[in-house]
Amino acid sequence: MLKIGQGGIRHLQRSSTASFTTVSASSIEKGQNRVVDASLTLIRERAKLKGELVRLLGGAKASTSLLGVPLGHNSSFLQGPAFAPPRIREAIWCGSTNSSTEEGKELKDPRVLTDVGDVPVQEIRDCGVDDDRLMNVISESVKLVMEEEPLRPLVLGGDHSISYPVIRAVSEKLGGPVDVLHLDAHPDIYDCFEGNKYSHASSFARIMEGGYARRLLQVGIRSINKEGREQGKRFGVEQYEMRTFSRDREVLENLKLGEGVKGVYISIDVDCLDPAFAPGVSHIEPGGLSFRDVLNILHNLQGDVVGADVVEFNPQRDTVDGMTAMVAAKLVRELAAKISK
Amino acid sequence: MLKIGQGGIRHLQRSSTASFTTVSASSIEKGQNRVVDASLTLIRERAKLKGELVRLLGGAKASTSLLGVPLGHNSSFLQGPAFAPPRIREAIWCGSTNSSTEEGKELKDPRVLTDVGDVPVQEIRDCGVDDDRLMNVISESVKLVMEEEPLRPLVLGGDHSISYPVIRAVSEKLGGPVDVLHLDAHPDIYDCFEGNKYSHASSFARIMEGGYARRLLQVGIRSINKEGREQGKRFGVEQYEMRTFSRDREVLENLKLGEGVKGVYISIDVDCLDPAFAPGVSHIEPGGLSFRDVLNILHNLQGDVVGADVVEFNPQRDTVDGMTAMVAAKLVRELAAKISK
Amino acid sequence: MLKIGQGGIRHLQRSSTASFTTVSASSIEKGQNRVVDASLTLIRERAKLKGELVRLLGGAKASTSLLGVPLGHNSSFLQGPAFAPPRIREAIWCGSTNSSTEEGKELKDPRVLTDVGDVPVQEIRDCGVDDDRLMNVISESVKLVMEEEPLRPLVLGGDHSISYPVIRAVSEKLGGPVDVLHLDAHPDIYDCFEGNKYSHASSFARIMEGGYARRLLQVGIRSINKEGREQGKRFGVEQYEMRTFSRDREVLENLKLGEGVKGVYISIDVDCLDPAFAPGVSHIEPGGLSFRDVLNILHNLQGDVVGADVVEFNPQRDTVDGMTAMVAAKLVRELAAKISK
Amino acid sequence: MLKIGQGGIRHLQRSSTASFTTVSASSIEKGQNRVVDASLTLIRERAKLKGELVRLLGGAKASTSLLGVPLGHNSSFLQGPAFAPPRIREAIWCGSTNSSTEEGKELKDPRVLTDVGDVPVQEIRDCGVDDDRLMNVISESVKLVMEEEPLRPLVLGGDHSISYPVIRAVSEKLGGPVDVLHLDAHPDIYDCFEGNKYSHASSFARIMEGGYARRLLQVGIRSINKEGREQGKRFGVEQYEMRTFSRDREVLENLKLGEGVKGVYISIDVDCLDPAFAPGVSHIEPGGLSFRDVLNILHNLQGDVVGADVVEFNPQRDTVDGMTAMVAAKLVRELAAKISK
Amino acid sequence: MLKIGQGGIRHLQRSSTASFTTVSASSIEKGQNRVVDASLTLIRERAKLKGELVRLLGGAKASTSLLGVPLGHNSSFLQGPAFAPPRIREAIWCGSTNSSTEEGKELKDPRVLTDVGDVPVQEIRDCGVDDDRLMNVISESVKLVMEEEPLRPLVLGGDHSISYPVIRAVSEKLGGPVDVLHLDAHPDIYDCFEGNKYSHASSFARIMEGGYARRLLQVGIRSINKEGREQGKRFGVEQYEMRTFSRDREVLENLKLGEGVKGVYISIDVDCLDPAFAPGVSHIEPGGLSFRDVLNILHNLQGDVVGADVVEFNPQRDTVDGMTAMVAAKLVRELAAKISK
Amino acid sequence: MLKIGQGGIRHLQRSSTASFTTVSASSIEKGQNRVVDASLTLIRERAKLKGELVRLLGGAKASTSLLGVPLGHNSSFLQGPAFAPPRIREAIWCGSTNSSTEEGKELKDPRVLTDVGDVPVQEIRDCGVDDDRLMNVISESVKLVMEEEPLRPLVLGGDHSISYPVIRAVSEKLGGPVDVLHLDAHPDIYDCFEGNKYSHASSFARIMEGGYARRLLQVGIRSINKEGREQGKRFGVEQYEMRTFSRDREVLENLKLGEGVKGVYISIDVDCLDPAFAPGVSHIEPGGLSFRDVLNILHNLQGDVVGADVVEFNPQRDTVDGMTAMVAAKLVRELAAKISK
Repeated sequence: MLKIGQGGIRHLQRSSTASFTTVSASSIEKGQNRVVDASLTLIRERAKLKGELVRLLGGAKASTSLLGVPLGHNSSFLQGPAFAPPRIREAIWCGSTNSSTEEGKELKDPRVLTDVGDVPVQEIRDCGVDDDRLMNVISESVKLVMEEEPLRPLVLGGDHSISYPVIRAVSEKLGGPVDVLHLDAHPDIYDCFEGNKYSHASSFARIMEGGYARRLLQVGIRSINKEGREQGKRFGVEQYEMRTFSRDREVLENLKLGEGVKGVYISIDVDCLDPAFAPGVSHIEPGGLSFRDVLNILHNLQGDVVGADVVEFNPQRDTVDGMTAMVAAKLVRELAAKISK
Repeated sequence: MLKIGQGGIRHLQRSSTASFTTVSASSIEKGQNRVVDASLTLIRERAKLKGELVRLLGGAKASTSLLGVPLGHNSSFLQGPAFAPPRIREAIWCGSTNSSTEEGKELKDPRVLTDVGDVPVQEIRDCGVDDDRLMNVISESVKLVMEEEPLRPLVLGGDHSISYPVIRAVSEKLGGPVDVLHLDAHPDIYDCFEGNKYSHASSFARIMEGGYARRLLQVGIRSINKEGREQGKRFGVEQYEMRTFSRDREVLENLKLGEGVKGVYISIDVDCLDPAFAPGVSHIEPGGLSFRDVLNILHNLQGDVVGADVVEFNPQRDTVDGMTAMVAAKLVRELAAKISK
Repeated sequence: MLKIGQGGIRHLQRSSTASFTTVSASSIEKGQNRVVDASLTLIRERAKLKGELVRLLGGAKASTSLLGVPLGHNSSFLQGPAFAPPRIREAIWCGSTNSSTEEGKELKDPRVLTDVGDVPVQEIRDCGVDDDRLMNVISESVKLVMEEEPLRPLVLGGDHSISYPVIRAVSEKLGGPVDVLHLDAHPDIYDCFEGNKYSHASSFARIMEGGYARRLLQVGIRSINKEGREQGKRFGVEQYEMRTFSRDREVLENLKLGEGVKGVYISIDVDCLDPAFAPGVSHIEPGGLSFRDVLNILHNLQGDVVGADVVEFNPQRDTVDGMTAMVAAKLVRELAAKISK
Repeated sequence: MLKIGQGGIRHLQRSSTASFTTVSASSIEKGQNRVVDASLTLIRERAKLKGELVRLLGGAKASTSLLGVPLGHNSSFLQGPAFAPPRIREAIWCGSTNSSTEEGKELKDPRVLTDVGDVPVQEIRDCGVDDDRLMNVISESVKLVMEEEPLRPLVLGGDHSISYPVIRAVSEKLGGPVDVLHLDAHPDIYDCFEGNKYSHASSFARIMEGGYARRLLQVGIRSINKEGREQGKRFGVEQYEMRTFSRDREVLENLKLGEGVKGVYISIDVDCLDPAFAPGVSHIEPGGLSFRDVLNILHNLQGDVVGADVVEFNPQRDTVDGMTAMVAAKLVRELAAKISK
Repeated sequence: MLKIGQGGIRHLQRSSTASFTTVSASSIEKGQNRVVDASLTLIRERAKLKGELVRLLGGAKASTSLLGVPLGHNSSFLQGPAFAPPRIREAIWCGSTNSSTEEGKELKDPRVLTDVGDVPVQEIRDCGVDDDRLMNVISESVKLVMEEEPLRPLVLGGDHSISYPVIRAVSEKLGGPVDVLHLDAHPDIYDCFEGNKYSHASSFARIMEGGYARRLLQVGIRSINKEGREQGKRFGVEQYEMRTFSRDREVLENLKLGEGVKGVYISIDVDCLDPAFAPGVSHIEPGGLSFRDVLNILHNLQGDVVGADVVEFNPQRDTVDGMTAMVAAKLVRELAAKISK
Repeated sequence: MLKIGQGGIRHLQRSSTASFTTVSASSIEKGQNRVVDASLTLIRERAKLKGELVRLLGGAKASTSLLGVPLGHNSSFLQGPAFAPPRIREAIWCGSTNSSTEEGKELKDPRVLTDVGDVPVQEIRDCGVDDDRLMNVISESVKLVMEEEPLRPLVLGGDHSISYPVIRAVSEKLGGPVDVLHLDAHPDIYDCFEGNKYSHASSFARIMEGGYARRLLQVGIRSINKEGREQGKRFGVEQYEMRTFSRDREVLENLKLGEGVKGVYISIDVDCLDPAFAPGVSHIEPGGLSFRDVLNILHNLQGDVVGADVVEFNPQRDTVDGMTAMVAAKLVRELAAKISK
């Protein structure tokens, strides 16, 4: 772990090769395995409890369940998104708003919204577990939620690198690709960014390579270079840039997705919004969508939404009174309304 | 859960008595049990791994291990301390300082400092577990850390209500009372505050009633009323008020504690400091200690420190650049230096 | 008074029934009466002076006069709007802008804008006067302004609960109902909120029950639940939700109101604006109107505006440089331009 | 009025000499007189009510009553102190602290603390009343409080210019000079500052010239020039500069004042504190007193305190969470404890 | 110099006439001449080096070069724009964005963007040089940049007063008038503001009088009074007010300028944007353009852009994380893309 | 240049080896030489002018002249000190304080304080000049100031790396070592930090190696590791740690330095102060000096102060109202009083 927990096991593994015999290493590895297993068990039990609760209340066709993934270390610039999930939860239930969605669903009904808590990302990393395995733990956690009928995962990031293990899990669990609606200022489709294949700037390259998405629509794009456009072309991505948004609006407010595949997944990077509407992000890129633009796209989307994420909210850059936390929370609320039925 | 996670099971239990049969309730209760068990298992495994690591490195007489308890709901005023542990960790390892303590211990050495992560307080509450049981989970978690020789717990709060289950666990595990050095603007010794026996304003009444402390020294006191002084007298508390600090300084910079009992426990409420030094607290009470005053007391204390906590840091009131997080982190660092040997 | 002035008479009345004989109570009550009378006298004299000034300058058909109502205790969440009136005044006359309105009226001309100061809400409450009477004092104050030809009241809130006594006074003074254009994120039409019939969330239920408004148009609505829609239907309210604003814009930018009744009253809750444009509000509800949207509605409205209010600006949540104060001030300025003629 | 209420009568009087006949002017003047009279009546009635309340509860030898004077226009630099009184009141009763003073007085007891509200400074100025008369209104208001046995005034500024009319009133009402303990970074004793004899930098020159103080002790001084030292010498002021505070501490923590005169008046400019302890002031002057230094001086002072003020708190420069408001409030609380008996 | 450098030579010249003989004055004047000459030499050398660099890389038809003018003293209200240029540069190269423009130009290529640094405005003023000469130094600096083929100046303000010497230089150097596209909340066309002919509120009056612009289009206007409209008429300015922006949008997104004259100059006052998008400005004027509105106008403009400026960014009013700096930087980046070819 | 000006020549030199022939390189190098020469000429002319001014006014034995060095890139953590000099100047002359020092010197008198402006560090780096040469430019600039009798340099940093070229220049110009009083939280005496011999953490290693200081006293130290203490011992540094400040205070408030050498140089890192007193620094290290502690040391120091610096003020971490800028400014003011005579 770079910034958080430098004194942990990884630091040791790097710095003190001499003092660590093979025996020690194997002993540590067994301990790591037990920590990972216990982490997954905890998520399984929480998911089971929430699934049972929903079923006891009469069940639902689809029911949203929050899963937090407080991971920030795959960001190139700032790592604040690791602190986002508790802030978003606080804002969801904060006293300043009522608990209905804009179209009238009641969020306090567990059939609409439950919560299975966070993947213990920081603790796992502090135990010296590497990124390959961490990504698997995230995927496993998503599957554990989906295991419990009728729960569907709505993931609270974290940086955008988490969308790769999440969408992979959704697709693997459902047995085929989904259509992905991706709202973002950036395409996040570098082949590899600064040597990190799990970089938050590369997640959609991984998703497309893995065949987890059939169509990928990127909306809100306004920071893209030559490689971003070439990778988009290579993977057949439908890139809607802000430069032409006034022309594209008609299309984007009438989307129909997910037919013939396993459904629709929606990934919202909070920086798709103009920084005026969402200042609490790591990458300030003026010229973005208004909050109402985003809701118009969501409300009018036709399709069966099987999962979603809200990522890249950075509480360390938010206003003192947490305006962006409220924005992220309302995105979560309206997505929950879209998923649950 | 009041503010965080209002849509959880507790809300349901309160509001919909009719729809919940005994069968349902029992089914939910079993699920809660499994979540609690899994939570404790996860802490046990992390503690084991860190204990093993320390022993593999040659061991130590005493070794500090951090345990986060992100609990804020027993505060009468603001609940921000629930967000403190990850911010303190970030500040401990932040790039703006080196990793030596003032007297020269190296924090990157796991024999000096390890971390077993957080008790999943918010998830447990969101599953509808009540406060009696939650307090037991906290106590159990502390004991799981102490189980692993030579780890000693340094707890990151959370509000001050957590000191009760923590000190109870330390005393029970060691088999007798300890001496407690308590730095705070307030005595936190109400018999019961606003009807809540677990209130952060009552924790030291619980501790004294339980016989977990032989001597209790309270330093930095400057917001105390008649009941506070009477309770102090009733329990034989040694209350050092700020009004007389210039006279008491000599005594407080030459303390010798813990002889004849199981050792010394140090509980630092960040608001013992003047708000000039620590603005990020819920209760702004001018006229407190300087940071150097606190260090002078700690550095000169003689005694075997068997556990400690740093509580009531409220990141939602901190400066933009996290000055109070750095203050809390330095308290943790110097306490770790004091504990580890 | 809950937060502000806890040590006042009301506290006493609640807590020390024993020590207060009937004689004492009657003596206090007479004192309260004298304080209320003196408060109204002060407003009457200020209104007279300003009315005389306008008439000495040649008079006008209608002339706007500001009346502050620093009341925040009927808010369910935060009480900062009690501090708003002096901040709005400061922003109106602040050196960073000129004193012309967008369409060219000169605000420094007393025929366009005068000020009769604040109703001493906090002092009245601190003297133990209850809310029924306080609401009457507010109504009386509005009438005292209207007494002075050609003054028309533009009220600076305060939370939204003040619109009930203000509109009641306007309607009673004019002798019949008015049409009300109400810009807000919320309908504020609960029958009763948290047991408080004067709640800022219930004011428009009171107004409709009292028959003070013929038509009520609510614009900017985006936080409304089942009860809000039912109450709307019950009272025949025309609710324009943000979900359909792109469709409704045409209608809303061509309103013609007030014919056949006593005129038009405009009530602007600052949170009708998206929080990007007005962060200094108690209830952050993303997805609102832009500032230009509001001006387009106002500038194009046809009708005789007989009174108005700007409410729910919360300076305790504003940006450091007071951006929302400037926003509230510009709303006041453009409303003054609309009223005065 | 410069910034606040530029459109008022004064603006008119300055700019439009032509259009104002003598008749008009006399008519306006009568209106002003009625506004001033009504303002004083309102204060008289509030003072009467509070005095009666204290007497009904059994009376007291001396009882503190707050009087706000929201005046900021005599500052040379920033005018924020005009907004201070409501913020200080909010902090006095804020939920983050208990209502006992450090030595044990109970503030909720009206015999210890009542409140007569604010002099309507802004409204009076907006009606075109000039500074000579405004200063008299302030003096009259103080006397109206003192009229009601056993009330003693504790004035909430406002900038430091208000201490002149307040101390003048106290001295005139008591019939002789008082001793003044003045805590400040500046001596405020210019003969005339920037052409304004009522400047906040000249108030103590006015007080000494008027013979309202026998001894004047200035403590905390660290921004003083040649004129400041010469004026000090001329008036026999005892100036304690911060440069020698470590030497002077002994004397200042053992003061005995007010014997042989009418008592002691304490004037605390919040900037006597180092900006670390009180950042919310207009004049940041590093190197000042700690909060505890101030309390040590106050707690140990011997003498009959007949009045006091806390001035120059500037909420527009305070931290987001109002640390300086809490500091000003605690000064008020401890002063109230000192006055009431 | 008023605020910055009060102890400089100008202060002396004003205050101590007696002690300065003619000999001294002439000696000082020679020194000032040498400082001015050295300042221009430094700019010339930097421009030469950057021009040579571009030519060595193969040259370009037009290549943007930044020139900072940190001048704030001609503002009527706040002087923060004097600190803007280094903050804008920091934001241009900040790690949170890539270095491509929206339409694909690569900013790291010196043929697209170089930098010749700042005119040493503060040092020149501190040496006692007056405004007439300072304005000439600015004009000369612009010409020194244009001297180096193919460099074209993009000036970083500073307040808006700098556009006069800059546009004058561009026009004089090119040998005829240009068309000016001016985005701003204010027309800045007072004949003379507060006695200062160089005021930032008068620059476009100077430009039109001098014949430096053929057409002047003002876009975003929403704070304009009678004089502003009359001056506009007098000089034949095309004023597009925000009141009618929804009607004018079509025209403004299809501009064709600069034919028949020496090209197009674009002057962007950051406050043309709504304060929601650009809070870091001295004059908060709600109801402005969105960032995308501005880009749509720029991207669609047809014409040969020969120079530009971005002015009135005030870092002292920006958000903590510098949102407006990022906004100003993106304006600079997109302008550079427009100029360079 | 890393962050600021990435598109400059250095970037080019690194990235495009192929396209740059030897001819090009030599041509660029000549241009760089001319820029460096012009930069030094500008400083020489400003120093000459200021020296002449002082002499014309009658001269002085020693006269302080400010020289800004806006260099931040040798910091390991944050680079904000590059923006400090203009902020400190603004605070020195800001309207919130008078222009006398605590002991009575008048700063507006040019014999006490003049200013020769900034070394154009950013422009020089943007032209591709490397650090060796940049350090020489800084040294040369200091010597150019000292060339002009009776000017003595008071340097405004910048990060602490600048003290090396400055003290080197002072010593070389005077022809022998000086005594250095160094106030800091850190010893800055690493042999080499992160591979950078010019690092702000290594400057005093360079100074001691070069023999520029005879005695080096370090005061305020509280972040020091084993290497720091060993290097201290190696060079014979007198390190006064905060742990023992209460014991050392007597000595430090009675220092006598500079006898037998060329005088005393004072280097103040703003972080010697506790962050409560100076929050605007890159390295928050609680437990430091109070502002009065620093002044007591300075005021009582005996010795001929031949130069000084105030470094590591980071405006990007300061409070909104610039409290640390005021602190840095007051340090500068009191140092100027100490130097000038």
